[in-house]
Amino acid sequence: MERRKFIKTAGVGAAGTVAATTLAMPAIAQSQPKIRWRITSSFPKSLDTIYGGGETFAKAISEMTDGNFTAQVFAAGEIVPGLEAANAVTNGTVEACHTCSYYYVGKDPTFALGSVVPFGLNTRHLNAWLRTGGNDLLDEFYAQHNFIGLPCGGTGAQMGGWWRKEINSLDDLKGVKMRIAGLAGQTMAKLGVVPQQIAGGDIYPSLEKGVIDAAEWIGPYDDHKLGFYQVAKNYMYPGWWEGSLNVHLFVNKTKWDELPAGYKAAAKGAAAIANETMLAKYDAQNPKALREIVAAGVKLKPFPRDVMEAAYKASQEIYADLYTKNPAFKKIHENQVAFRNEEVLWFRVAELPFDSFMAQMQSRG
Amino acid sequence: MERRKFIKTAGVGAAGTVAATTLAMPAIAQSQPKIRWRITSSFPKSLDTIYGGGETFAKAISEMTDGNFTAQVFAAGEIVPGLEAANAVTNGTVEACHTCSYYYVGKDPTFALGSVVPFGLNTRHLNAWLRTGGNDLLDEFYAQHNFIGLPCGGTGAQMGGWWRKEINSLDDLKGVKMRIAGLAGQTMAKLGVVPQQIAGGDIYPSLEKGVIDAAEWIGPYDDHKLGFYQVAKNYMYPGWWEGSLNVHLFVNKTKWDELPAGYKAAAKGAAAIANETMLAKYDAQNPKALREIVAAGVKLKPFPRDVMEAAYKASQEIYADLYTKNPAFKKIHENQVAFRNEEVLWFRVAELPFDSFMAQMQSRG
Repeated sequence: MERRKFIKTAGVGAAGTVAATTLAMPAIAQSQPKIRWRITSSFPKSLDTIYGGGETFAKAISEMTDGNFTAQVFAAGEIVPGLEAANAVTNGTVEACHTCSYYYVGKDPTFALGSVVPFGLNTRHLNAWLRTGGNDLLDEFYAQHNFIGLPCGGTGAQMGGWWRKEINSLDDLKGVKMRIAGLAGQTMAKLGVVPQQIAGGDIYPSLEKGVIDAAEWIGPYDDHKLGFYQVAKNYMYPGWWEGSLNVHLFVNKTKWDELPAGYKAAAKGAAAIANETMLAKYDAQNPKALREIVAAGVKLKPFPRDVMEAAYKASQEIYADLYTKNPAFKKIHENQVAFRNEEVLWFRVAELPFDSFMAQMQSRG
Repeated sequence: MERRKFIKTAGVGAAGTVAATTLAMPAIAQSQPKIRWRITSSFPKSLDTIYGGGETFAKAISEMTDGNFTAQVFAAGEIVPGLEAANAVTNGTVEACHTCSYYYVGKDPTFALGSVVPFGLNTRHLNAWLRTGGNDLLDEFYAQHNFIGLPCGGTGAQMGGWWRKEINSLDDLKGVKMRIAGLAGQTMAKLGVVPQQIAGGDIYPSLEKGVIDAAEWIGPYDDHKLGFYQVAKNYMYPGWWEGSLNVHLFVNKTKWDELPAGYKAAAKGAAAIANETMLAKYDAQNPKALREIVAAGVKLKPFPRDVMEAAYKASQEIYADLYTKNPAFKKIHENQVAFRNEEVLWFRVAELPFDSFMAQMQSRG
């Protein structure tokens, strides 16, 4: 600053402390405005870990901004039904929602790629893909629906569901009525399963009464809570349609663009905390629940090899078909598959041999 | 508030706008004070991914606080040598350091438990343990050294190092001079290896001249950068002494306690971002580097079964011995092992069968 100008400015300051103070206020107000968001969750409060991801985000963002930027989480159904959460963000009913992208495959199958698809990425691979370009590809797609997505939670690999009768071969799948949705349901249909769409709260009575023969949900911690072990005695693995699950915070694009830069950064940090916390909780809580499920007389059973191979082949046919119809799906899925192939190659060298050896040592006791 | 009191207070405000404004300022100043940290890194800038974890933290914390809380990262050697980073935090030379806890096993073997130990937790398990009580146990221990730890990066499972001659059985380890430190070096010593302490920059020439016969470093991305493939042609796996690696941000306890609550929350968010980003980058970058290493004529070789079993046994002996001498190590390691055993059990059901099937499909092409 020129000396003359400095003196002049300093003079104003010295003569006008009140004015200077008043001038300083808007800058502060601008960077830390009071912002209140409503986050509609796709989950009920009873599923504390997955629902809790929204709460973890809300707590962190408030703490980071000294309570200036707060978010209130509403359980599924309080504002809109769980499976309409993204629509409420698109049309601005709420600023954000905590949901799974694949709930919206009915609008466009491309949504599945933000969560997980059959024989897709595992959790490490999905997290790496999302953070090295994958989420940017998703955001390009989500822009058509007027929101952006922040990865905000994960479950790890899921289980292959609850089956009333034993599945020992591909033939045993024929005619089985199973509660399973989306691309997983389409894949199962190719194997002879009759997929059923049933809301979370109705699964238990449907399975109990034999209206359905099988149902998939999440993994031991949540499945144990819902009590499925009481009405179906075969718990299959792995959930090849959910080798991972990413949960997103979708934020209305206008509301996101309006945020000051500092709040955007804080939201990303809060989402990262929620992401790590949810996965850590699932990983820490699943083993005990699994022990309790087994103690209740449930048989843990791997899917037979012919089922795994037929399902893999069926999923490839579904992707090939989607490629001819849906350029967005093709673009993002091809990117994911190329990434996955590289990751699986590397994990065959470092991670899998380590994990396999540790599993052997553990089974030996 | 009583009506009488309210009127009185309001009166002060109405009559004294200047005073009210002046009174409001300290509250804002208190919650967003200007803070400048120096973070000394244990890593050179050339190892961009692991060093970059400190930079990612610094960028995020500054963005979250509108530039009011900033941190400058200094490469190893700029303020103190890389392996003295924690000491500089203990004595308050710097506010924080970005380092690996196990670099300080010379002070106390308990430090190893903050990074990884031979046949310890894999990355998912370590992240889950740290976030569900493990890091609190570490903080109790770190308090003796006047700092707290924020998990701030990871590498995933590492490789088993570069070997000039082929290792086909346990006998081949006898007399091998290997650059390997800490508990891993002690384990190797029980197998007949002669562990050597050599600084990062001296490994390549030592391996080239045959001063050492083997050296371990990190994984394909970093190892490729350092060019080890030019002077040793056997690249072993898995790095059973580093089935994961957690990198910490250690913060001087007084400096941490002085932070306003909002800055503590922001620091946790910035560390979570750094944690996810570093792992994602390693996962995304390792496959290409591995391809280049193999293309340069390097043999990828699994450790022979007898080496793995003998190493596992040797590590258990080391832990049993430490238990008799070091209550802090015993307390935290027992907690880790109990956690690991539960995790490995659960991963045998959901994660491993999924990953193994995907690996089979990938190897089939």
